[in-house]
Amino acid sequence: MGLFSKDIKTFDDLFVHMLQDIYYAEKQIAKALPTMIDKASDPQLKADLKHHLGETENHILRVEEVFRMHGVEAKGVNCPAIDGIIDEAEEIAGEVEDKQVLDSALIAAAQAVEHYEITRYGTLIAFAKRLGRPDCASVLAKNLAEEKNADSTLTKLAESKVNLQAAE
Amino acid sequence: MGLFSKDIKTFDDLFVHMLQDIYYAEKQIAKALPTMIDKASDPQLKADLKHHLGETENHILRVEEVFRMHGVEAKGVNCPAIDGIIDEAEEIAGEVEDKQVLDSALIAAAQAVEHYEITRYGTLIAFAKRLGRPDCASVLAKNLAEEKNADSTLTKLAESKVNLQAAE
Repeated sequence: MGLFSKDIKTFDDLFVHMLQDIYYAEKQIAKALPTMIDKASDPQLKADLKHHLGETENHILRVEEVFRMHGVEAKGVNCPAIDGIIDEAEEIAGEVEDKQVLDSALIAAAQAVEHYEITRYGTLIAFAKRLGRPDCASVLAKNLAEEKNADSTLTKLAESKVNLQAAE
Repeated sequence: MGLFSKDIKTFDDLFVHMLQDIYYAEKQIAKALPTMIDKASDPQLKADLKHHLGETENHILRVEEVFRMHGVEAKGVNCPAIDGIIDEAEEIAGEVEDKQVLDSALIAAAQAVEHYEITRYGTLIAFAKRLGRPDCASVLAKNLAEEKNADSTLTKLAESKVNLQAAE
């Protein structure tokens, strides 16, 4: 998309582009999470990541719902940001030997993913409202709430347990 | 780093790795911001991004201070995440024709950068505290506070003005 032409002409085009971006991102995250779940040792971390994989599958469906509501085809665009965030997660996971240190690294990586989604959904919701689509904003707000919740669940687990064990 | 061996053995190694990651990221952001400032049309957006460039230069110095306090050499590691986030910012900026829509896209891109830094500083501060280094945590907390402030300044500007003009 857009290598030889300026494809985004209106604010609505930008909204659709951002929707395609998060659609691609959610799908890449759904592909990356099973490996992170496999690598995690702490049972609570495994459970939290599994729970979030289920939520991510729902997020994809909700983004598809917003595409339908907005009357455009559901499709993704390449998103170098999420590719980079996932590459970095895989790279660092490959460099850590100790299982407990690896759990801390996995949490940090998962939180970088969450924060990318938090900023994108924040933007999408603001755009949807500005376009007079509170109905789309409200579907997207469900995803945002779950991303924020996943992030704070990981913070609690890191600070109450995983980082303690890793630093022993 | 680490292509043929597992370089991160301890929680302290992971802390240093994350410090190298944010050091590289801050430097890449300092390189990318001038282009974003050039592309911005709204005078307040230009001013906010310029202000944040000044803060970013300070963040680099503060990260160098933490390296010194921790007794390790200040150096960066490749950070595919920030490279991807910046690539995506440049890609989308190149696809937008209308100046006011471009301002909205630039804000969204800058907020993705801020959120990456927010998650990384959050992790670094938690790690520093766990390692018994509240002094390092407190220097890093100054950067985190400014990143959060930059993010919320951009949200206010988008919602009060820039997105309104873009959606006209």
